[in-house]
Amino acid sequence: MILVADNLQITNLSIAQALKTMDPEPVQEMVKKCEAAGAEAIDINSGPLYREPEKKMSFIVEAVQSVSNLPIILDTANPDALEAGLAASRNTVIINGFSLEPAKIQRILPLASRYDADIIGYLLTPNGHVPVDGPSRLNIACELYAVFEKVGAEKSRLIIDPVLVPITWENGSRQAMEILDVIKILPDLLDFPVKTIVGLSNLTTGRGSMEKKLLLERAYLPMLEVSGLKMILMNIFHHDTVKTAKAVKILTENKIFTLA
Amino acid sequence: MILVADNLQITNLSIAQALKTMDPEPVQEMVKKCEAAGAEAIDINSGPLYREPEKKMSFIVEAVQSVSNLPIILDTANPDALEAGLAASRNTVIINGFSLEPAKIQRILPLASRYDADIIGYLLTPNGHVPVDGPSRLNIACELYAVFEKVGAEKSRLIIDPVLVPITWENGSRQAMEILDVIKILPDLLDFPVKTIVGLSNLTTGRGSMEKKLLLERAYLPMLEVSGLKMILMNIFHHDTVKTAKAVKILTENKIFTLA
Repeated sequence: MILVADNLQITNLSIAQALKTMDPEPVQEMVKKCEAAGAEAIDINSGPLYREPEKKMSFIVEAVQSVSNLPIILDTANPDALEAGLAASRNTVIINGFSLEPAKIQRILPLASRYDADIIGYLLTPNGHVPVDGPSRLNIACELYAVFEKVGAEKSRLIIDPVLVPITWENGSRQAMEILDVIKILPDLLDFPVKTIVGLSNLTTGRGSMEKKLLLERAYLPMLEVSGLKMILMNIFHHDTVKTAKAVKILTENKIFTLA
Repeated sequence: MILVADNLQITNLSIAQALKTMDPEPVQEMVKKCEAAGAEAIDINSGPLYREPEKKMSFIVEAVQSVSNLPIILDTANPDALEAGLAASRNTVIINGFSLEPAKIQRILPLASRYDADIIGYLLTPNGHVPVDGPSRLNIACELYAVFEKVGAEKSRLIIDPVLVPITWENGSRQAMEILDVIKILPDLLDFPVKTIVGLSNLTTGRGSMEKKLLLERAYLPMLEVSGLKMILMNIFHHDTVKTAKAVKILTENKIFTLA
């Protein structure tokens, strides 16, 4: 699976400040650190960018591209920011993302074919709620794919996010297990090798010891891999989780190697 | 999955010495340590016990039972030792094990029905070789089950070990992945919820850094769990692997809990 760093985000104060003052350096430093830590793609979580969305998104995309050739994921609900980011991208770019919410279908989904870019589709209800179980996710996936096809986008452009929920939710662990099945079933259900992505930190959102959170991350990641997950959005500075991902790669890539 | 300690073994010098001098203390200490470390069953790997097999096996079974109520697994190819161990067992006992090798079918398999005990069946060829791939393992499982049924043992007594191979073998990682499929498919193939066991240390047998070995163990264990594995034979003093197993339990048991 491809490791996508979720570290470049507006909730990080140095990144928020950099966006405000249009200073590329903190962004560049962060991207370099992510790449050194093992990132294979960079999620640019810019937040909604209420003020000057185009200018801000172009700035941050340029800052990332000035130091890295990694694929970038434009992670904002603001369609104007997305469009500016797409226009500014030279690296491979992924739109993050749309769902059955009408505003997203109207304003965000069309960008995928307009810019010939991959787009992440979330398995959320039309009013933005998390589905209650696995079968609901599969139903939503069918609706989402129907909507996706209608706009005439190339089906290989779709990346589905089944929407992981915190394990502390009443049905959290059940949902985590059902999501493994959803990932496994989706290619057969939609009848093409649809790509999937999961936001790993969703599993352990909320209060709790970091040690236990990391332990759960590292236990869930190999399960995701054998279920066929293609991309994982994660804190790339969780070094032991990255190590687990590398061990998973050794196990699943059919190569000869030594244990040295 | 049930964590079975593989630590009580003849290759451990203190255990070898204890067996030689019939001193229960080192055995008892080891069992107590295993139980404290999270063991849910104890594998008694006595080796072949060429001299006084009955006496030695009875001794070690008694020593284990004197300090623990955990299920015990009698792990020897010596049928006389097995029979003595079965006769001495008050705890739940599992025979480890038989395969399509004629000597084992004749001398070991019948003990399962005679003592109404679970028995581990290895997916090995009739001359004791490791199968080359997943489909061969499934063929052997069918033959093994046919032999098992023929002796009239209760089918719920069968525990299948698909025989993991070192990942450093030319096809090691491919076999590791195929074994996940074998574990998944077996219950459908044999048409009952057959139990499975894997010896985790087999994956990393041979030369190599311990850190990398442990990393691979911890990455493979969650994959085994989601494939439906019921028991895992492992070094219970690999504390981080035990922690991973506990995290896996949290993920797969459908319970509500906190991350505290």
